Amino acid sequence: MNDRNAATSSPEKKAAGKAAADLVTDGMVVGLGTGSTTAYTIEELGKRVADGLDILAVVTSYQSEMLAIDAGIPLTTLAEHPVLDIAIDGADQIDSNLNAIKGGGAAHTREKVVAQSAKRFVVVADDSKVAGKLDHPVPLEVLPYARNLVMQKVAELGAKPVLRTAVRKDGPVITDNGNFLIDADFGVINDPAELGIKLSTCTGIVEHGIFTNVDDVYIGKKNGTVEVRSATKN
Amino acid sequence: MNDRNAATSSPEKKAAGKAAADLVTDGMVVGLGTGSTTAYTIEELGKRVADGLDILAVVTSYQSEMLAIDAGIPLTTLAEHPVLDIAIDGADQIDSNLNAIKGGGAAHTREKVVAQSAKRFVVVADDSKVAGKLDHPVPLEVLPYARNLVMQKVAELGAKPVLRTAVRKDGPVITDNGNFLIDADFGVINDPAELGIKLSTCTGIVEHGIFTNVDDVYIGKKNGTVEVRSATKN
Repeated sequence: MNDRNAATSSPEKKAAGKAAADLVTDGMVVGLGTGSTTAYTIEELGKRVADGLDILAVVTSYQSEMLAIDAGIPLTTLAEHPVLDIAIDGADQIDSNLNAIKGGGAAHTREKVVAQSAKRFVVVADDSKVAGKLDHPVPLEVLPYARNLVMQKVAELGAKPVLRTAVRKDGPVITDNGNFLIDADFGVINDPAELGIKLSTCTGIVEHGIFTNVDDVYIGKKNGTVEVRSATKN
Repeated sequence: MNDRNAATSSPEKKAAGKAAADLVTDGMVVGLGTGSTTAYTIEELGKRVADGLDILAVVTSYQSEMLAIDAGIPLTTLAEHPVLDIAIDGADQIDSNLNAIKGGGAAHTREKVVAQSAKRFVVVADDSKVAGKLDHPVPLEVLPYARNLVMQKVAELGAKPVLRTAVRKDGPVITDNGNFLIDADFGVINDPAELGIKLSTCTGIVEHGIFTNVDDVYIGKKNGTVEVRSATKN
């Protein structure tokens, strides 16, 4: 919730972001997430493209589009390539079962579309994002028309909902899709999958920020090393 | 460009905002602008509605809609009431000929629609907004698709254009209409009307922030008094 576009560089983020670039090989179509850690992945992939790596990328936001173009990564769309080989993205919080909360950057709807279009979904993060259980407020992208209905419904589900207000415009933050964001603080979330289903059934919520399909997490540490955790496939 | 939703209250803004409420009388349909000074007008009109003032209002943004509803002012739309009796709004800068620059709050497109739908357009501002000549960067609401074209065109017109980035989301600020904002710094603007025409002819600019149809300006002073300047009608 701080200035997400300000310099939030850190050795931990850089280590995780760069390490995940090793997963991308010639011929892949890659989903590029949004945020300060993924920005390092995009930067690193750009260097490798300049060195001959042959990939196409699908972006998740105006931010990742701009970064990918600056980095020289050739772009495509889900219309042309509905199945991605891999998607790499950041997260606001990750629990020990590799559930994640995303949406601090207001991009979680497109990020989830890309994550679910990918054969492998990899999260990159610094170790401050790792928690035993999720307790970060859950970002909800909401149709402006349905704002009050959603506020009421998520309060009934036990959350303290707050409409996210903008800083460089008056009134609410507007997403890249033209919608509002409600940050819904549920406290500790014991069953992220169950809560996700409840939120998905609330009319007016375009998408919630709970991700339960993470395959691997690359966690950058203060000493510059990267710990990889992978989901046990059922 | 600072936190526009933070407490930016000031006696000057309050004096100007409240004084303009005197222009609103029974039976009027009123256009309500956006921003911290107009918020005082909305608050004051709400008190008068509670005391029996009979008006309807048209809003210019999600922010002014929320404030007007909180204040208890009954709302209507331009679809129902295409002609407004008066519109009251703030400004980022006003010159000695009552030309104004607006759009710091990202709402200038709808604000201009409302201003041009009103028989009388009144600006409320604190005296820090008054200048001999306009030199504030001109906010341009821009179709995302046309961003690079517009950046190039306004640079050719002599401006330094900057895409406005968001703080509580990643990437650019998105307007209530789903578009981008470019803040185009032209330095001193000697002929605001002429520049306005040039900007209006740039494909991809939805609307620019130069307003040349201000009828009256209510300027709040540090001592709590309000100076009224009115345009000489041609």
